[in-house]
Amino acid sequence: MTTPTAIVVGVGAERGLGAALCRRFAQGGYHVLAAGRTGARLEQVVAAIQAAGGSAEAVPTDATREAEVLRLFDRGMAPGEGRAPADLVVSNAGNNQRLDFRTLSVETFEEFWRVGCLSGFLVGREAARRLVPLGRGTVIFTGASASLRGKPGFAQFAAAKAGLRAMAQSMAREYGPLGLHVAHVVIDGGIDGERLRSRRPEAVAERGEDGLLGIEAIAETYWHIHRQPRSAWTQELDLRPFKESF
Amino acid sequence: MTTPTAIVVGVGAERGLGAALCRRFAQGGYHVLAAGRTGARLEQVVAAIQAAGGSAEAVPTDATREAEVLRLFDRGMAPGEGRAPADLVVSNAGNNQRLDFRTLSVETFEEFWRVGCLSGFLVGREAARRLVPLGRGTVIFTGASASLRGKPGFAQFAAAKAGLRAMAQSMAREYGPLGLHVAHVVIDGGIDGERLRSRRPEAVAERGEDGLLGIEAIAETYWHIHRQPRSAWTQELDLRPFKESF
Amino acid sequence: MTTPTAIVVGVGAERGLGAALCRRFAQGGYHVLAAGRTGARLEQVVAAIQAAGGSAEAVPTDATREAEVLRLFDRGMAPGEGRAPADLVVSNAGNNQRLDFRTLSVETFEEFWRVGCLSGFLVGREAARRLVPLGRGTVIFTGASASLRGKPGFAQFAAAKAGLRAMAQSMAREYGPLGLHVAHVVIDGGIDGERLRSRRPEAVAERGEDGLLGIEAIAETYWHIHRQPRSAWTQELDLRPFKESF
Amino acid sequence: MTTPTAIVVGVGAERGLGAALCRRFAQGGYHVLAAGRTGARLEQVVAAIQAAGGSAEAVPTDATREAEVLRLFDRGMAPGEGRAPADLVVSNAGNNQRLDFRTLSVETFEEFWRVGCLSGFLVGREAARRLVPLGRGTVIFTGASASLRGKPGFAQFAAAKAGLRAMAQSMAREYGPLGLHVAHVVIDGGIDGERLRSRRPEAVAERGEDGLLGIEAIAETYWHIHRQPRSAWTQELDLRPFKESF
Repeated sequence: MTTPTAIVVGVGAERGLGAALCRRFAQGGYHVLAAGRTGARLEQVVAAIQAAGGSAEAVPTDATREAEVLRLFDRGMAPGEGRAPADLVVSNAGNNQRLDFRTLSVETFEEFWRVGCLSGFLVGREAARRLVPLGRGTVIFTGASASLRGKPGFAQFAAAKAGLRAMAQSMAREYGPLGLHVAHVVIDGGIDGERLRSRRPEAVAERGEDGLLGIEAIAETYWHIHRQPRSAWTQELDLRPFKESF
Repeated sequence: MTTPTAIVVGVGAERGLGAALCRRFAQGGYHVLAAGRTGARLEQVVAAIQAAGGSAEAVPTDATREAEVLRLFDRGMAPGEGRAPADLVVSNAGNNQRLDFRTLSVETFEEFWRVGCLSGFLVGREAARRLVPLGRGTVIFTGASASLRGKPGFAQFAAAKAGLRAMAQSMAREYGPLGLHVAHVVIDGGIDGERLRSRRPEAVAERGEDGLLGIEAIAETYWHIHRQPRSAWTQELDLRPFKESF
Repeated sequence: MTTPTAIVVGVGAERGLGAALCRRFAQGGYHVLAAGRTGARLEQVVAAIQAAGGSAEAVPTDATREAEVLRLFDRGMAPGEGRAPADLVVSNAGNNQRLDFRTLSVETFEEFWRVGCLSGFLVGREAARRLVPLGRGTVIFTGASASLRGKPGFAQFAAAKAGLRAMAQSMAREYGPLGLHVAHVVIDGGIDGERLRSRRPEAVAERGEDGLLGIEAIAETYWHIHRQPRSAWTQELDLRPFKESF
Repeated sequence: MTTPTAIVVGVGAERGLGAALCRRFAQGGYHVLAAGRTGARLEQVVAAIQAAGGSAEAVPTDATREAEVLRLFDRGMAPGEGRAPADLVVSNAGNNQRLDFRTLSVETFEEFWRVGCLSGFLVGREAARRLVPLGRGTVIFTGASASLRGKPGFAQFAAAKAGLRAMAQSMAREYGPLGLHVAHVVIDGGIDGERLRSRRPEAVAERGEDGLLGIEAIAETYWHIHRQPRSAWTQELDLRPFKESF
């Protein structure tokens, strides 16, 4: 019996979506490569998983740098004795911020694209390269409602996320028939995680119970996507808290 | 301990999506009201569920007739001792056929709308009337990719299904914040069921293994939608076989 | 030299979109069949066009009745000496109203569909039947933003208009290559016409100058669509006042 | 009487969309700044316009470089005596090519984004900065159907164009109410221009008469968008040859 392997790119705080995905996949019996920029945070996530009896390792990775993504997949495809090569990959890097369009610098516009779209390309391309030959596997991209609707103040974010979505769709159309399940999740609404809780605690309080996206609940749906048999795959779905206006 | 109740509208052959939904909900511990036009078929579905240890009853219903839908919900909201009122409703009625637009009769165009859209209105409105006051519950509409793209030969089907989708979206925006989870499932591709197997066996053979939508797999995703906590609800997702071009 | 003929279905008040379309097409050299439910209003529109030197005639028509639409096209395809059969058709019937979903009657839901979708089918099918054999012509459907997004209180309208849009798309894909230009116009926002001015004068005042859709401006874009050479056709466009939030 | 000024970014061969836009705007009475990478080509376009009695000037510009776009707008907003600052801007830079996703280099993915999306940001941001204070003007982005659907082999193009579309939408929502008309044109199908004629002459021949997008026809629709009164603006429309399947 070999243990399957998952790669989660974009892991930060323990109370964050990336970490919740790692935990869910570990609960599902996966050895999880937790990839993110900050090693110390990854170690915390990994330690908690191990303490709960799961299997995980930290792979510090800047997902906007090709060499680091290649190295991550090198590890994921040869994860050690008793483990199978990765067949579950999540591209979860991202950031968001409202910014004034007319004073937006080229550097900032580009930085949003690097984190929100280019990192997805690097992860998606490696996944296609490595998993398509196996004829199976799942790649899930964390998207945003901004990929469907550009709103004032969010041009930089919408442009990146719309690009990511289009790329994911191209991949799905090409690699689905070859056995690779490519899905795009439209996150609509604030995530109940450390980022929002530390930056905008008043917004969190105002939304009330279940007014923000629960990270464990999101992770459960990613897991469901991965578990779908190939006779009924989802390419895209949205997730929002019940109160969210859309 | 009370048993929860589900209503599935649009149940036909045992090897059909409606029947698979009934089975899945019964496995999940639900008492299921199987509603469809043909009593004998409903009885078969119910008998099989009961034989497997589940709980179900047949409620012959023409979902295009208001009085019959009202009666169905009357039963579903007062399902008998030890049972809770219905909190899971699926509107699954439908038909499809390629027809020449220029020779299409008004009657046929209208009939597609009655089955594909009006039945959904009747079921959706009753669900809203009865479940919103409870502040919880799930209503899922079986939709089609034709709701997103009108193709030649399918104007009558696309018009009905696009109408259904728009109605479901209106409901979701209004009743989500009140606790009712309204979801629309975009079925893309042929369903591996009795209809296709009897009418177009050559198409089934041609698609090969997993080339058509598996009814148990679809049912599993409906179940997942129902189980989503309100902190992360899906309003819309698509389902297609891995080979399906889209 | 023959005069070309246009059919405009859904003509009401002089200060309404239907009437503005009639005027614009007459200015463009067309003989216009103004079709609508109220003969007296049609006569006013026709008289004004004639007074301005244009050519038009009133054809009282309930666009939800097949026989009347057939008669209208019989007239439009044989419009009299010196005139060519109709090659420009607009389906502009419609209504809109915010209604509570849970108390919506089946009759009202159906009535919205008859006016907003079935009338379009009747007009569209006749146009396809009569114009496709000619290998040229234009059919334009007046749509609504509700065809793209269902909002609370507008399920009945959104369902009808989404159906209309899907049907128009099916037609466009089938008949475009045969030379028939099928377009769908997404009207987004209130129209500065008699209906709104009489029913909600305060809303008109509040929007300020150019805050509502100008009927002459809309008509100009319909005319442009008709004038597009077949090497660059528009299938869908939106129209909204500059202030409209979307 | 002052002459209005237009800026067209992405001007190449005389038989190309950029050049056709310059000609159309010049015919409409505009002084046109033709901007593109190749000075010699710009000079040809300008010379032809002048020979036809129009007014134009060449401004060699790499639209992916901020400094060059700033300089272009500096010129466009102070175009010389008797001329008004630019109030019509088109962002038309682009490229397209089918490429294998798994062997796509980061550099190529990025280059598509620079040409297809970043150039639009630079042009769009400058237009917003300079035109919004005037409270009027038009900015039109040349988009692609790939912005709506990612297909196999076109991930790099779709990602760029989807980003451009999302950015244009953000701009439209923010600056429309301030008087700036922001439109996005979905070009669907091959353009009958020098690029396609030189690279794939067999494809041109195969499509037959009007089987490709006519550049003069496209330009006419851009002109129409610019001429729309603010009471009925189009934010998005598609353009395709009548034969194009979609």
